[in-house]
Amino acid sequence: MSTKKVEFISSRENECIKRVKKLHDKKYREEFKSFIIEGLKLVKEAIDYQIKCVNILIFSQQAKEKYQEFYNECKYLLQDGKIKRVIEVPDKLFEYITTTSTPQGILAECNFIDTDINFIKNLKRVVVVNKLQDPGNLGTLIRCADAFGFDAVITTKGTVDIYNPKAIRATMGSLFHLLIVREVEEGELIKILKDNSFIVYVATPYGDIEVSKIVPDKRFCVVIGNESEGVSDSFTKVATRKIKIPMVGKAESLNAAVASSIVLYELRKR
Amino acid sequence: MSTKKVEFISSRENECIKRVKKLHDKKYREEFKSFIIEGLKLVKEAIDYQIKCVNILIFSQQAKEKYQEFYNECKYLLQDGKIKRVIEVPDKLFEYITTTSTPQGILAECNFIDTDINFIKNLKRVVVVNKLQDPGNLGTLIRCADAFGFDAVITTKGTVDIYNPKAIRATMGSLFHLLIVREVEEGELIKILKDNSFIVYVATPYGDIEVSKIVPDKRFCVVIGNESEGVSDSFTKVATRKIKIPMVGKAESLNAAVASSIVLYELRKR
Repeated sequence: MSTKKVEFISSRENECIKRVKKLHDKKYREEFKSFIIEGLKLVKEAIDYQIKCVNILIFSQQAKEKYQEFYNECKYLLQDGKIKRVIEVPDKLFEYITTTSTPQGILAECNFIDTDINFIKNLKRVVVVNKLQDPGNLGTLIRCADAFGFDAVITTKGTVDIYNPKAIRATMGSLFHLLIVREVEEGELIKILKDNSFIVYVATPYGDIEVSKIVPDKRFCVVIGNESEGVSDSFTKVATRKIKIPMVGKAESLNAAVASSIVLYELRKR
Repeated sequence: MSTKKVEFISSRENECIKRVKKLHDKKYREEFKSFIIEGLKLVKEAIDYQIKCVNILIFSQQAKEKYQEFYNECKYLLQDGKIKRVIEVPDKLFEYITTTSTPQGILAECNFIDTDINFIKNLKRVVVVNKLQDPGNLGTLIRCADAFGFDAVITTKGTVDIYNPKAIRATMGSLFHLLIVREVEEGELIKILKDNSFIVYVATPYGDIEVSKIVPDKRFCVVIGNESEGVSDSFTKVATRKIKIPMVGKAESLNAAVASSIVLYELRKR
């Protein structure tokens, strides 16, 4: 039992507040190798699944009252040395550091949780995200990958940052449930997939087989591409199968998040 | 051949400009029984599929240059009496009436296209949307219903307005491809479904059968509920089957648009 206590901070000039504010920007996330999560659900998921990544936990005064039970839990975790710092701030100061327009008053700074690409050796079911641009779409995809039993989500260089606050929010905590590998160079990734005998499914409107006809191999990855341009040629070239979603109406295409979710659903663990 | 010409309007005080601006609000949409669509894709879909609903077509000066070919087509449609009015406005004035932050400079006022609930007699595959709140989710759902061969989308009272500009945008034109019935009272809808021998599938996380196990009847509807509260009791009570999506990971739920898309995909026309 340590004697660590909840700190009270009320100034924007405090180093910790300045640090959290900077984490809105990717540049500083890369520098500090940390990111922000917000809201009761996400912070609980971080604590439950990857508590070691949690650095600083911040409550607004309102949230301290409203989520008293959780606040007390966090105090114990602080005393046990499981969380490094717990900080209380005035509501106004919380509004200054929040990344959302409707803050719950709970925020944590977490260390990066992505792992090395070489972990892929131990995996069987992998989603590769290739240049997706919308953070909401990326987060939704991670949530789906979790729901449908995938082991990991790997993004290639040129994909929106997994640690973007909007992406994080859309994961609803699922980023703490599976392995994340981040911004791998396409050529390197293709070599590693090949070296580890991964079957490569590429999702594309120009696919030659309907996704429902696929019986997934024991070890495979599925590549999801950019919202308007789809998957890079380098992946299309090495694809084992190019898969598509059957469409019968007059719609020319599906929403990107919807299309990729249907693909992950069909390739789910059964 | 009429002698109708493209009009040039430059004042915010013009009746037509005032009318379009008012259509941002549901109140005035109900009063005028018309709504706004924006962008080349949507306006083209309206012209191709339901030209009779198109009242006023507005181009910004920039868009007139950029989409010259389409602009000329519209001039011919005006001369043929197929479109009532085509108007050109300065870019600044277009910015005043647009509903988006990144306008393409093409906008149309269209008459309501929803039809009477009694048309249901002729339909076989219907989506019922029950109190969904997010306009983007509703639009995405209409796009999916189109892609997967449904005949109609019916919303119940308490559902977000189908003519909300964000909903319209997310449909990507699909609202012109199928029948729309709008804001029907739940009790009335249930009676009509029953009178017309519809099988009722209700999508819910508490379903007793996986959606992939369903072989859809010849005539059915599927009810999609509110993002957080799901489907109303009144529908759950009359459900022929309560269907769910299998999930194997640690995610507690799926994004609402994703979940309903997967349900429509599984119940698609084959």
